[in-house]
Amino acid sequence: MKTIAIDAMGGEKAPEAVIKAVLRVKKELPHTQFVLFGDQTKIKSLLGNDISQIEIVNTTEVIKDDDEPVKAIRQKKDSSLVVAAQFVKQGKADALFSMGNTGAILASGIFIIGRIKGVARPGLMPTLPVKNSDDGFNMIDVGANAKSKPEYLLDWAKMASYYAEKVRGINNPRVGLLNNGAENDKGDDVHQKAYQLLLDSKLNFIGNIEGNELLDGKADVIATDGFTGNAVLKNIEGTSGVLIHLLKNSLLNNGLFVKLGALMIKKALKGLVSKFDVDKYGGAVLLGVNAPVVKTHGRSGERAVYFTLKQVDKILQEKIIDEFKAEFANKE
Amino acid sequence: MKTIAIDAMGGEKAPEAVIKAVLRVKKELPHTQFVLFGDQTKIKSLLGNDISQIEIVNTTEVIKDDDEPVKAIRQKKDSSLVVAAQFVKQGKADALFSMGNTGAILASGIFIIGRIKGVARPGLMPTLPVKNSDDGFNMIDVGANAKSKPEYLLDWAKMASYYAEKVRGINNPRVGLLNNGAENDKGDDVHQKAYQLLLDSKLNFIGNIEGNELLDGKADVIATDGFTGNAVLKNIEGTSGVLIHLLKNSLLNNGLFVKLGALMIKKALKGLVSKFDVDKYGGAVLLGVNAPVVKTHGRSGERAVYFTLKQVDKILQEKIIDEFKAEFANKE
Repeated sequence: MKTIAIDAMGGEKAPEAVIKAVLRVKKELPHTQFVLFGDQTKIKSLLGNDISQIEIVNTTEVIKDDDEPVKAIRQKKDSSLVVAAQFVKQGKADALFSMGNTGAILASGIFIIGRIKGVARPGLMPTLPVKNSDDGFNMIDVGANAKSKPEYLLDWAKMASYYAEKVRGINNPRVGLLNNGAENDKGDDVHQKAYQLLLDSKLNFIGNIEGNELLDGKADVIATDGFTGNAVLKNIEGTSGVLIHLLKNSLLNNGLFVKLGALMIKKALKGLVSKFDVDKYGGAVLLGVNAPVVKTHGRSGERAVYFTLKQVDKILQEKIIDEFKAEFANKE
Repeated sequence: MKTIAIDAMGGEKAPEAVIKAVLRVKKELPHTQFVLFGDQTKIKSLLGNDISQIEIVNTTEVIKDDDEPVKAIRQKKDSSLVVAAQFVKQGKADALFSMGNTGAILASGIFIIGRIKGVARPGLMPTLPVKNSDDGFNMIDVGANAKSKPEYLLDWAKMASYYAEKVRGINNPRVGLLNNGAENDKGDDVHQKAYQLLLDSKLNFIGNIEGNELLDGKADVIATDGFTGNAVLKNIEGTSGVLIHLLKNSLLNNGLFVKLGALMIKKALKGLVSKFDVDKYGGAVLLGVNAPVVKTHGRSGERAVYFTLKQVDKILQEKIIDEFKAEFANKE
């Protein structure tokens, strides 16, 4: 029996979206237990009588999006996030989920739940869509680290590759390095050395991937320094958001004839948007800490949380943390 | 009278696209001279009799896209690009245009035409579209430098801000720093120090800009380290390309009804695509060398070259290189 600790208070649509998602997912995961951290009265009223597989731990504080992360987890000792992380640390739960303050979630993972021995630095890894398949790809690190060393990228690629194989079912995942050109001598020192480390590893390294190729599906895993990964992840979100916004605008503001045409293509557009609907790809995982720590976007609704909780359950089933502990123990 | 040296052989659609663009633009720029470098026979046959304002310099070699840039400009002494760059260096032309091998264009600018004294490093700067206006924004550096120091970013921001004001007519351009968060202490050492340098400068610095905000039009100039800038620029291209590809696919493969709707919204879609049609924003400028060195994408056609030659002419009219020489001379 596995237990997921859930910060019920983080995120714009909390706690409603979280509770609804738990009520939906628990029917599909009858062997999983859910512990909800937050305002007990609110949570109880939303749950109603359907309380099988669910436990509530009352907390009195909430970490806000504009709280300074490290300070917040030190000072807000009775926040839903910190108490949930402590629960995992104490072995009372096996994984942590939150859609609150990203920095605070990372800090809870790194400082409370703790780094796996031998992993240089934990890295944050989302699953993102690709052009011509439903497989998507994993990119790591997307911002847990402002400064990255070549060895970090190797560790991230190892963990993400194992994750892609076990959790996403990709056979022998192709690993690429985000770099500023295709040739093997491209990039600054960090990326040149990371290239060599990846080449010398047992990973299925396919070489450099440039920024325009990310969504092409050339690689199943893309290793990147955390600064560039952060900029690029946000840029995918921003660029696709702007295009969809402009598309909607031009369909609505070009007269009745175009509006009618827009109605006729509605079905096709929904298909397009669902391709870039990141909900179904679940949340971003902090890899390299002693338990799965998984977050979704602060704006996420019930559907994204539902998919993410299924993902967390799969990570636990595949026991990937045990594998990482064994793999990296040899390094120290 | 200003003279533009034009590499007529670089790019997928050369020399046809180049010649057509010159023939079109010269009527609008009667005081500008165009020197075409390349295969004389081919160029002459494409030009026909319309040779006013035009000079041809015959060259026998072409630098290919897969040539190693620095090696190519050393070895292919009689290539259209190298001879054109030498022409500029010798003062026989005032600016260089090419749509060939990007690395070779940068190397020609830096090693043949030469860096302006006092500029730490030249930076490559495109003009990109924004969401709700036709102004666009400048991003610098997008890949002339794999490794960047804080002082480089300050120089780039200064030059790009001056460019935005004089060439694009933006009053007191807002300058942002691409960083991994909004707060002033974000980023690695390079970005933290660059933030301080920008804050202490006379520029209209508005703070950090995150990857998702690039196309929002919050800033007129965005300074970035060359590695991240390269990844993000290519990613904007890749992400918008994938979305437009998926949109077209879903309009064509969802039955007759949707196809009919697609016909009805064609006008609106053209408006959308023209928003992201980078042609009209001209080429990317290598700022910090002794003459304007301007490139467009290797896939560019006549239209992009036409807009870019107008842009080069405007840069020459505004004498921005003289201004940079005066500004940075005080530094050394």
